[in-house]
Amino acid sequence: MRASLATALILLAATANASEPTASSGPTLAGVLEASQAADWRRPDPENLLQLELPGGSVLIELAPDFAPRHVANIRTLVRQGYFDGLGVVRSQDNYVAQWGDPAADQPEQARSLGEAAARLAAEFERSIEGAPAFTPLPDGDVYAPEVGFSLGFPAARDAARGMTWLAHCYGMVGVSRDNDPDSGSGAGLYAVTGHAPRHLDRNITLVGRVLRGMEHLSALPRGSGPLGFYQGEERGPVIARVRLAADLAEPERPAVEVFRTDTAAFAQLVEARRFRREAWFHHPTGRVELCNVPLPVREARPH
Amino acid sequence: MRASLATALILLAATANASEPTASSGPTLAGVLEASQAADWRRPDPENLLQLELPGGSVLIELAPDFAPRHVANIRTLVRQGYFDGLGVVRSQDNYVAQWGDPAADQPEQARSLGEAAARLAAEFERSIEGAPAFTPLPDGDVYAPEVGFSLGFPAARDAARGMTWLAHCYGMVGVSRDNDPDSGSGAGLYAVTGHAPRHLDRNITLVGRVLRGMEHLSALPRGSGPLGFYQGEERGPVIARVRLAADLAEPERPAVEVFRTDTAAFAQLVEARRFRREAWFHHPTGRVELCNVPLPVREARPH
Repeated sequence: MRASLATALILLAATANASEPTASSGPTLAGVLEASQAADWRRPDPENLLQLELPGGSVLIELAPDFAPRHVANIRTLVRQGYFDGLGVVRSQDNYVAQWGDPAADQPEQARSLGEAAARLAAEFERSIEGAPAFTPLPDGDVYAPEVGFSLGFPAARDAARGMTWLAHCYGMVGVSRDNDPDSGSGAGLYAVTGHAPRHLDRNITLVGRVLRGMEHLSALPRGSGPLGFYQGEERGPVIARVRLAADLAEPERPAVEVFRTDTAAFAQLVEARRFRREAWFHHPTGRVELCNVPLPVREARPH
Repeated sequence: MRASLATALILLAATANASEPTASSGPTLAGVLEASQAADWRRPDPENLLQLELPGGSVLIELAPDFAPRHVANIRTLVRQGYFDGLGVVRSQDNYVAQWGDPAADQPEQARSLGEAAARLAAEFERSIEGAPAFTPLPDGDVYAPEVGFSLGFPAARDAARGMTWLAHCYGMVGVSRDNDPDSGSGAGLYAVTGHAPRHLDRNITLVGRVLRGMEHLSALPRGSGPLGFYQGEERGPVIARVRLAADLAEPERPAVEVFRTDTAAFAQLVEARRFRREAWFHHPTGRVELCNVPLPVREARPH
């Protein structure tokens, strides 16, 4: 309870000044990125980079083994068996998610074999704060969680009173579909958030990463007309040509991206540049920024 | 300041119990809608219903003259001149907005004439609470505004200390594009929010309504590759066949929809059903709901 109270007091302080925030001086987002140094960027581990090839282009996903180790390991097993190759996007629900996997997953006789991968895994909805990666708090408040911020470049939340932390369902986050049983997911069915952050899913489903690049190949798909946006009848989602881990690709094929770190002074400047929009277009800076409105920049890797 | 403090105290109360909310008993969202009575629904004024015809289907927008009377009047003038007919979607920026209007708007010699409509209007970013439509508060807290809730079925915010209220940039809200000058919009260029709520736009741009139906015909468009998602080069957005006000359509063509009221006991039940998700799939109800995650149901009109 103490941590929740502390969070509330931060909200109280922020709210009391909310009426008309005074713009602070400093760079714009573009200025922060221009002034950034090599050390402000990181290259994701190739074991955590998943490349999904769709007809429209590639979707690059960074996995988060620190938050969902069992699911990430199972996804790697599935990928290395070529499980996803030739499957497709099965669902596109407006303002919610795009989901991919085996359209016949629920029909035992037609479903593709999971091979060495587990068919069910214990849920990884949250994890202990103890031993968790560093957390950079965002003190601007949150409707859903006692505390929010960033961990290893992912939007995250914490409840210090319970000693738990979890990833947050912002736009572009990737999770594991499941049935009603919390332990019924495996990673053979995955989804990406394509609409307003469905934060009510936090701690109800296992998040495994986020889309770094190519989000538009999932978000702009035609919506399915079936219940929950599943494609039905003659509708077909795009076929997945293949899914590969960057670690398994030869160097010329390997996606080379850098992600802006979330534990630096430059990131703190970026957040401030979003609280107080300094672009000439803005006339009423809000003075605060919500977790899922903080951009997490990605760029082509540069020679060090 | 008093109102801001009151809001903060509500946040404080909510946050103190946030760790593990206890699910309350009651209907699901589906149950609330099934049990709803005719009086829980309203039929929008045909003068406020804008039908945008795209190749993929129709987009139905409800205008909000109580919040942006000048812009709504100007949009009606433009529509009645056939201004939008044959123009198109000019911009689709991932996780942000789709925008439509005249692709040549910035080229005086090629731009389509606005006819009797004004080319510039004084901004309507917010309005006085005095005389404003009834406001149903959502006491769950908000990162951006001292107070949020619903007004005439639109997501809205208020600052009692300043005596002002405004519409909020949730998914599907429709606004008026403008240049850096706050008074440079007219309604000849309009956008709909297609991604995570860009609430930093609140009070920075004039909102005029929201999409009631057909959002997928805007949200699933290919993204533009130009700056800010504008279509460039060979890219073309879909052509708008025509835009009409429902009031100007013959009865058989007139869209007949009903919108769930936001000032009823049934709506309070709907909100509660989203704070405490009672569907069997959910295991950790959040106990709170954020403004832009509250559904605002629309259905085909039924005989009274």
